[in-house]
Amino acid sequence: MTDTSTPRTDGALSRRSVLAGAAAAMFVPASVAAVGSSAGAVSAPATSRGTATTAAGATATARATAGTVHRITMYVEDLGGGQTGYGLEPGKATIPGPLLEMYEGDTMEITLVNTTDRDVSIHPHGVLYDVNSDGSPFNRSYNGPGETRTYVWRTTGERSLGRWARPGTAGYWHYHDHAMGTPHGTAGVAAGLYGGLIVRRQGDILPDRQFTVVFNGMLINNKIAPDTPMFEANHGETVEFVCIGHGDMFHTFHLHAHRWANTRTGYLEGPRDSSQIIDNRDLNGGDSFGFQVIAGEDVGPGAWMYHCHVQFHSDAGMSGIFLVRNADGSMPDGAQESIDWFHDHEGSGHH
Amino acid sequence: MTDTSTPRTDGALSRRSVLAGAAAAMFVPASVAAVGSSAGAVSAPATSRGTATTAAGATATARATAGTVHRITMYVEDLGGGQTGYGLEPGKATIPGPLLEMYEGDTMEITLVNTTDRDVSIHPHGVLYDVNSDGSPFNRSYNGPGETRTYVWRTTGERSLGRWARPGTAGYWHYHDHAMGTPHGTAGVAAGLYGGLIVRRQGDILPDRQFTVVFNGMLINNKIAPDTPMFEANHGETVEFVCIGHGDMFHTFHLHAHRWANTRTGYLEGPRDSSQIIDNRDLNGGDSFGFQVIAGEDVGPGAWMYHCHVQFHSDAGMSGIFLVRNADGSMPDGAQESIDWFHDHEGSGHH
Amino acid sequence: MTDTSTPRTDGALSRRSVLAGAAAAMFVPASVAAVGSSAGAVSAPATSRGTATTAAGATATARATAGTVHRITMYVEDLGGGQTGYGLEPGKATIPGPLLEMYEGDTMEITLVNTTDRDVSIHPHGVLYDVNSDGSPFNRSYNGPGETRTYVWRTTGERSLGRWARPGTAGYWHYHDHAMGTPHGTAGVAAGLYGGLIVRRQGDILPDRQFTVVFNGMLINNKIAPDTPMFEANHGETVEFVCIGHGDMFHTFHLHAHRWANTRTGYLEGPRDSSQIIDNRDLNGGDSFGFQVIAGEDVGPGAWMYHCHVQFHSDAGMSGIFLVRNADGSMPDGAQESIDWFHDHEGSGHH
Repeated sequence: MTDTSTPRTDGALSRRSVLAGAAAAMFVPASVAAVGSSAGAVSAPATSRGTATTAAGATATARATAGTVHRITMYVEDLGGGQTGYGLEPGKATIPGPLLEMYEGDTMEITLVNTTDRDVSIHPHGVLYDVNSDGSPFNRSYNGPGETRTYVWRTTGERSLGRWARPGTAGYWHYHDHAMGTPHGTAGVAAGLYGGLIVRRQGDILPDRQFTVVFNGMLINNKIAPDTPMFEANHGETVEFVCIGHGDMFHTFHLHAHRWANTRTGYLEGPRDSSQIIDNRDLNGGDSFGFQVIAGEDVGPGAWMYHCHVQFHSDAGMSGIFLVRNADGSMPDGAQESIDWFHDHEGSGHH
Repeated sequence: MTDTSTPRTDGALSRRSVLAGAAAAMFVPASVAAVGSSAGAVSAPATSRGTATTAAGATATARATAGTVHRITMYVEDLGGGQTGYGLEPGKATIPGPLLEMYEGDTMEITLVNTTDRDVSIHPHGVLYDVNSDGSPFNRSYNGPGETRTYVWRTTGERSLGRWARPGTAGYWHYHDHAMGTPHGTAGVAAGLYGGLIVRRQGDILPDRQFTVVFNGMLINNKIAPDTPMFEANHGETVEFVCIGHGDMFHTFHLHAHRWANTRTGYLEGPRDSSQIIDNRDLNGGDSFGFQVIAGEDVGPGAWMYHCHVQFHSDAGMSGIFLVRNADGSMPDGAQESIDWFHDHEGSGHH
Repeated sequence: MTDTSTPRTDGALSRRSVLAGAAAAMFVPASVAAVGSSAGAVSAPATSRGTATTAAGATATARATAGTVHRITMYVEDLGGGQTGYGLEPGKATIPGPLLEMYEGDTMEITLVNTTDRDVSIHPHGVLYDVNSDGSPFNRSYNGPGETRTYVWRTTGERSLGRWARPGTAGYWHYHDHAMGTPHGTAGVAAGLYGGLIVRRQGDILPDRQFTVVFNGMLINNKIAPDTPMFEANHGETVEFVCIGHGDMFHTFHLHAHRWANTRTGYLEGPRDSSQIIDNRDLNGGDSFGFQVIAGEDVGPGAWMYHCHVQFHSDAGMSGIFLVRNADGSMPDGAQESIDWFHDHEGSGHH
């Protein structure tokens, strides 16, 4: 009854090759690698695609040497059905919004165009901003209905204090509305106004593919199984997950057959790094973390589940598929059966 | 009204001496140090033992040089009263199931015998497995009623990427059913189908005693105070706690008078390790951590409490006793009074 | 309608200058820097102050060379309106109680005077104590009505085990009642019997100002917005937050425009420290963490929000103000408007 053909999303290009060519410049326009950024990414009871196989949010990559100023325009758009999204072009809003990236030392200037009739804003985590870019009604820094406003986010590296160092701004962060409905943006966040924000440090490993996973109330990227995103990669590719928590409930993010270090990057800093290795992590309101894995490393290709590990939540549909295709992009043995099974058994729509 | 004699559990041998004699071999049968592995480990309103002093699950130790293949058989058994357990021999199922151990590089082949009339499986966290050992209905890798099926778990060390390293599989992990009742094993986990899984790195410190503590809904090891396990050690012994979270509720694990580093092992990697020292930690669905402490170090022998620090949960019976005996194994002054007090005042049975 | 004059709290002296003069001694009387330690710190529907601008708990500083024995007397006092506090002098109890400090190697002897007609105690996290100082009815170590009892807390540095080290007791800890109402002190904690406890390591950076933030149920320091504490510092000062979780609910602590490392101190141990940088962290029952930031560093002075990031909680009043004044102590442009806005829009009292 569901579309299980899982067509490869066209925009899911290898990003590493793109990044290798990034030139040093003081102004790098954000490029958009639209991965499932069509309206199909919006939660809707029935669309022409109508499956869980529509993927995972647009990506705005803006990388170059430290000190780059990235100037982008973002649009807040009503997506119907009570959903609202951020997009980098008119008519291209998605849930989650575009994945934004910077290096420590960069600046991002976001001209936010509010096309809705409600107060909205964009409030980032982790980066530097003055009160005028706080994104809160508390500091009168938000967009009224139809208004355009520019927000400036800056970053910095760590500062040595001798033995100690004050941390810089590198991290897997996120941004979200802080104005719609309540002073804390509760209606905006519920409607889908959120996205990932990565600040890298020079030398950080760049991934081939990126996925943003937002646990928001009982939804993942504002969807419920079987309509949750299916993330796809080829066996052996370096895949980056950006995980974000929102809403009123507590959650734990679990990924089958892969694991990462509980560090800034998900990697260890050599053999003396004492950090815990995990495959399950708390993901509560306002939290975010990220990590990279080699798709199917040591375990092989196949359809793997990711889900909230709170039992009631997983049973109610907080689950999705991480499809690790064969290295040549073909479907692994048995994977289609698993995808079919998922569509028939997971989530609220099928019980 | 309760049995407060707290007899020393016979199986609680010093494990270090046993381990010192572990030979390098390509096949090491799992030995069973049955610590309170009788039916008394099953939650029941009234049994012939009926006290909190029945201890803490069986232990399958299987250690040798890296690269060892451990072949074990596990039995899923109905324990009555809605409880189900894993065991290493017929009629020996416990809640939690046996504590399984490997070194990075080892493989464990588990032949799972399902003696029940329901679907069950064994799904591990942290280790390597292909889709046929996923333990999920999603990947058709589970045991139907009465079926036997083999699951293979592999492990690996960390891999250097220059400055960074991809983490290996060392950790305090766990395993659980992923098939009974729902596609996520909700009925199996609720019934007691869970246990600890340790993957060590060469050079890790070995403990004298080990305890598995599972916060599962409002229960500890499927029991409520005063019937929760009393963990016992002698003053000065190295004790290892493996803590696992399951179910629908959020919890924090707190241990009185002892503390550990929030690292992979609970130890610090020397004086430059910046990790936080803790005595209280979130323990939510699918999470696990472990640590070692010297029983009574710097604080002396006595009866110490461990409990969930969510106030309502501790008041409702999510608490237990860590009894640190004198170095010669005798009961410390005042400890019996504390045990008596616990039996008369903690948990739902006495209010 | 609310007092928005936000007078500078007189007791908010620079602490670094005080500490520089701390002499090495075997007995250092605890000094009290009373920051808003009057009855105004107690939650009450209407008081003569009645604003969120009453600040943040008293501070007992007791620092000197390692090995110091700090002898203090603390008083448990009924504050009216169902509130109870700890204080260092009769009539000076506050919520939270005084912030206690030690260095690894120090001892603190607390003579606890119970001026109430209920059972109370003081139970610390992180430090060393024998069963007689456990603070629990379980170990018969609590104060009956009107009783005085001495509790002894000791500390230690880390101990090398070769490659590994057993952690010492340095950390951002806390203390709380463990006797009132239930064996776990649920009534005492709810009434306000809690406070911060810092154990420093030699060489740790000392702050200019300190703030204790306790998420207790749906309250912050037993208050709800707009009556939650406004923490104040001058631009460029080193500010220390001590964050503590209590009660039955789960929370995440978020601070706008500032960030810290998820380490013991909030600092990194140099450029190879792999720890995550965060500005949002789980803060659940019995948990605590601390960190230092430079007030307004890289972002400028202004009124910044801190709040629980669980959406419903922030909307219901779990929010407050971190006022970063200009370096000369004057009010930054726009900050008063933000404070006014907060008083008119945040929390339950204004909807």
